Amino acid sequence: MRLHTLVGSGLLLACLGGVSYAGCVNQHEQQQKVDLGASQSVKDLMAARGLTDADVEAALKTYVPPGKHDEYMIFASGGQSGNVNVIGVPSMRLLKVIGVFTPESWQGWGFGGDSNKILADGHQAGHEISWADVHHPNLSETKGDYDGEFLFVNDKANARVAVVDLKDFATKQIVANPLAASDHGGAFVTPNTDYVIETSQYPAPLGRDYAPLSEFKEKYRGVAVFWKFDRQKGRIDKTQSWAIELPPYTQDLADAGKLDSDGWAFINSFNSEMATGGTLDKKPPIESGASQNDMDYLHIINWRKAEELIKAGKGTEIKGMKVLPLSVSGAEGVLTLVGEPKSPHGCDVTPDGKDIVVGGKLDTHATVYSFEKVKKLIEEKKFEGKDDFGLPILSFKDAIRGQVEIGLGPLHTVFDDKGYAYTSVFLESVVAKWSLKDLKTVEKVKVHYNIGHILSAEGDTVSPDGRYVVAMNKMSMDRFTGVGPLYPQNFQLVDITGEQMRILSDAPIGNAEPHYSQMIKVDKLKTIKAYPPGTNAEGQVDENRVEGGKERIERKDGEVHVWMTAIRSHFTPDIIEVEQGEKVVLHITSVESGEDQTHGFTIDMYNVNVSLEPGKHENITFVADAPGVYPFYCTEFCSALHLEMQGWLLVKPKEKSASAPEADKKTGG
Amino acid sequence: MRLHTLVGSGLLLACLGGVSYAGCVNQHEQQQKVDLGASQSVKDLMAARGLTDADVEAALKTYVPPGKHDEYMIFASGGQSGNVNVIGVPSMRLLKVIGVFTPESWQGWGFGGDSNKILADGHQAGHEISWADVHHPNLSETKGDYDGEFLFVNDKANARVAVVDLKDFATKQIVANPLAASDHGGAFVTPNTDYVIETSQYPAPLGRDYAPLSEFKEKYRGVAVFWKFDRQKGRIDKTQSWAIELPPYTQDLADAGKLDSDGWAFINSFNSEMATGGTLDKKPPIESGASQNDMDYLHIINWRKAEELIKAGKGTEIKGMKVLPLSVSGAEGVLTLVGEPKSPHGCDVTPDGKDIVVGGKLDTHATVYSFEKVKKLIEEKKFEGKDDFGLPILSFKDAIRGQVEIGLGPLHTVFDDKGYAYTSVFLESVVAKWSLKDLKTVEKVKVHYNIGHILSAEGDTVSPDGRYVVAMNKMSMDRFTGVGPLYPQNFQLVDITGEQMRILSDAPIGNAEPHYSQMIKVDKLKTIKAYPPGTNAEGQVDENRVEGGKERIERKDGEVHVWMTAIRSHFTPDIIEVEQGEKVVLHITSVESGEDQTHGFTIDMYNVNVSLEPGKHENITFVADAPGVYPFYCTEFCSALHLEMQGWLLVKPKEKSASAPEADKKTGG
Repeated sequence: MRLHTLVGSGLLLACLGGVSYAGCVNQHEQQQKVDLGASQSVKDLMAARGLTDADVEAALKTYVPPGKHDEYMIFASGGQSGNVNVIGVPSMRLLKVIGVFTPESWQGWGFGGDSNKILADGHQAGHEISWADVHHPNLSETKGDYDGEFLFVNDKANARVAVVDLKDFATKQIVANPLAASDHGGAFVTPNTDYVIETSQYPAPLGRDYAPLSEFKEKYRGVAVFWKFDRQKGRIDKTQSWAIELPPYTQDLADAGKLDSDGWAFINSFNSEMATGGTLDKKPPIESGASQNDMDYLHIINWRKAEELIKAGKGTEIKGMKVLPLSVSGAEGVLTLVGEPKSPHGCDVTPDGKDIVVGGKLDTHATVYSFEKVKKLIEEKKFEGKDDFGLPILSFKDAIRGQVEIGLGPLHTVFDDKGYAYTSVFLESVVAKWSLKDLKTVEKVKVHYNIGHILSAEGDTVSPDGRYVVAMNKMSMDRFTGVGPLYPQNFQLVDITGEQMRILSDAPIGNAEPHYSQMIKVDKLKTIKAYPPGTNAEGQVDENRVEGGKERIERKDGEVHVWMTAIRSHFTPDIIEVEQGEKVVLHITSVESGEDQTHGFTIDMYNVNVSLEPGKHENITFVADAPGVYPFYCTEFCSALHLEMQGWLLVKPKEKSASAPEADKKTGG
Repeated sequence: MRLHTLVGSGLLLACLGGVSYAGCVNQHEQQQKVDLGASQSVKDLMAARGLTDADVEAALKTYVPPGKHDEYMIFASGGQSGNVNVIGVPSMRLLKVIGVFTPESWQGWGFGGDSNKILADGHQAGHEISWADVHHPNLSETKGDYDGEFLFVNDKANARVAVVDLKDFATKQIVANPLAASDHGGAFVTPNTDYVIETSQYPAPLGRDYAPLSEFKEKYRGVAVFWKFDRQKGRIDKTQSWAIELPPYTQDLADAGKLDSDGWAFINSFNSEMATGGTLDKKPPIESGASQNDMDYLHIINWRKAEELIKAGKGTEIKGMKVLPLSVSGAEGVLTLVGEPKSPHGCDVTPDGKDIVVGGKLDTHATVYSFEKVKKLIEEKKFEGKDDFGLPILSFKDAIRGQVEIGLGPLHTVFDDKGYAYTSVFLESVVAKWSLKDLKTVEKVKVHYNIGHILSAEGDTVSPDGRYVVAMNKMSMDRFTGVGPLYPQNFQLVDITGEQMRILSDAPIGNAEPHYSQMIKVDKLKTIKAYPPGTNAEGQVDENRVEGGKERIERKDGEVHVWMTAIRSHFTPDIIEVEQGEKVVLHITSVESGEDQTHGFTIDMYNVNVSLEPGKHENITFVADAPGVYPFYCTEFCSALHLEMQGWLLVKPKEKSASAPEADKKTGG
């Protein structure tokens, strides 16, 4: 084979002829032909590595050969990482981390460039916040199907929502919820992405007022914000967004209706006891206080009606946002409750929009609500009673289609294309597969360990793909080699195409604690490879875009403005002289256009690092407060002479500079 | 098979007997037996997924079955991410990101807890720096072999070095270089980790003074810092550390000698032209100015002699550090130069310590220096001349053992256990394998694309393992599905056990731009699973450790101190009442001890998030400046009732609180 390769690549003659340079070696392209029957058969390899037949099957189902692409992409919430992990399927390789709420210096997200402005829009009530607890990413939808255009994520800790543009996998907007102190039921989109829904978790006085816990029932509230999405602009339009006041239960997960249930939204909740703890005084902790009632309340929201009422002026304004009060919502059929058993969790609308599935952390069932029944009861005003806040309550038994016997601690449910649902069961550590038609569990597979969320291929659309389920396990225990007391989570890829579910692989998540995730077919994504020249972080051609030959340094109003270009392997200018105390404003454009030809830019000690993808523009402002010599350089290995891509910021001590520095009148024109 | 599984697990009888709960389903443990000969043979799977025989071999060599462990671990520098990626081999799964210089909120690194103090030690000249450009991680060594105890990494951008303890994979110390404005040749350890070497990259006046570029030759300098490592304490001892002044060439990579060359260190350099650019004035860019000379200088350092001279008081003190001046180093044989051809790069000592290999970015050779020859020339003072700074220069031809014809742009070289070296060749995009004995290239394999660094299993030790090489490619181009204009890097795992090198897999790096990395056998690591009760970020039992039952809230000196415990699924206390403007100090101990039983703690809007692994203690200080209701909660999904693990910080508006809050006198005892 070696001889054949040499002949095949035309190198043999060169070798024989004694040509020395780079010729007389076996230079080959991957993958050369390997005859498994000869040197290393499958059986030999299996023996050498202790692989079973099942392992071989799993290996061949998950291996993506060098240069070949994954078929699906997972967008996984990062939990406390504040960012989003993008993972290929079936390889489960981490393809990218998207900086969202937490500064991420590799991509220059939040380190002195224009992205800082986007992050600053996410500050809450004047507080700078530089992290988030990201729970539920949602891909934009058209007619209930992922369209691959945008991704929305929430920040549970600080009640915020972000918009990621999937053309460049970059965050374009962060909006701070002016009403809630935390969120959880978000970011869920309506079937055409008219709205991004964000519902609160822990009740608090709306608009961040103070009230003691003794006034919990009177003054604490939940809230569901309907952020209006302007797809043309690719941004949430705050002026067209509004909210619905909710009772002070702990609202949990939410989902938007689709097809039959389009125009509706559903939120499960717990702690209808309104327990507030008091452990220091030996009162029961909230975990106990909130688990007393047999039933909490599923919230059923007719958001299209709410939208009409808001337009009709029925909302109250709180912190600049129109809020539909409980009194209006209850009376107008906008907000209706129905019982949910035993520490409810999860809230998932089936692909046909006909059912809503809710789990229960201390239950053994998943409860399946019939939207048809629910809607009829509301239309006919058949209520069993009202809660303390005047909200109508439906009869549990009249509202459900049935309950599925699942196992201890069912949480979340996803769907395939064959009429099956897959529920994550935390306490039992299994994925339970059950039939939507007859509400019977047909199979369980052990997962490792303590599965929280679960996801399936195109699982939240009107047409799931089947193929894969991923068990998003909260604990990994013995699954990976030790990396200290903080363990990775464990994503287990499950093949659901066969008669039985099959776990194909364990994928450690060592940079995040994902909650929900979604999986999309990669051919739906239309990413760009380079930016139009001079594009800034907000996606606009920047007014300070720099073209080659027009670089210059100018002083105005006590500021030193530098219009700079980056091209391999140098910056122009590469020498910047300023006086101590001057404000420096750099306008840098990458004048590259080639794919993957990225530069970076940093200045020693000024905490600045930006990523300059082809065509990208960044504006950087800092005060040169300390005299000295500060090398700046390209931080992304861009070429053979990358290390030479550097320059100098010279900051003259104040007392030594009698006249303006030389650089003052220089231009590159 | 299904019937067999049911019988095997003892569930069949229960099913037949009509028992309903969780019984009548096919619950099975992975991996059930699969007969590949039956349903899906290897050939069927290959056809279905378009796999070649070579792909099957690679799949079976890299697949790690669920629950099985990787054999090696890579510690990869994160480049501009400022952190370290830990990757399993052969699976290439990302096992963990270690927060080092850049705050990382999943692990609560730099978000209001005690880790902030460690990060603050890394501030440079009073500037807060919250990112880094991490280039060269080095594992601690004992007798030239990785011992699995510590990891050291450098920050090129801001000239810093960090110490990571591999017991818990957590950063314990950051030291700021007081002399240099950037570094590159670091962090390289001596064979018993007596010293961690950090050498500068871009010259600047030592100690961060100002000097104009016109005084470059007179006032700009490089520097090599020898950080003394106290293994007992697991910390760098700044008081015992010292430095050697270097000429103002651009020092690049470094390596410590070993065995025969123990006591010596080597640094390659470029830009002996001392070009400083001037692109705005149409002067040649540095990439061109620095590429004029045919030869730059390999720096040969006798560090053991330098240590003696420092002890003998020959050093000058600059910014609190003893620095051996060029005049002393040159005269005493501490610092000697020898020519290096064509934009030198890379500096790698062979496992036997006998040779030093240097590449050349614009060369087609790797140059192999003989330490024996070099040492003899120095001992005999056979110098060819002196450089502008009085440093003796050896004859190039007398110092080398030879040059290896490799291909265009050889950079870095690593080694196996069979006498072969593997060099990364950037411009040609290949890994070149060559014989150390006869200095002949024997094979090249194409990599994808533009390989920068290269690593091999246990490659920097006195006894490399062979087995694997990883090509750390700077560009990935078409290798992965599109994720926008910022592409992942591409680690390619290469099997070097066979007659030919074989690329086994492409691993995207989507959160970092790794430069160098090291690979260690996992059985050398002795990680802990939980902390001794009350352990803080610095690894000490904290003086404010809280035991169960001793929780309390106390006011002193205008501060509210809260001693809190975390255990599933509640905090004690779970209600904290303060007045607006009060400083709040939380002392939180996780009283868990079980493996993987991690909690987190955040308070809405105060930018606080810490990770509480079992036994971990954190101290958090903030000013409650805004009145309102702030839920705090556990951020790590810890149990079925994790969402209920929450509490309330109540900040009373100043004007409304006439008397001290109720919480004042509460104790939990």
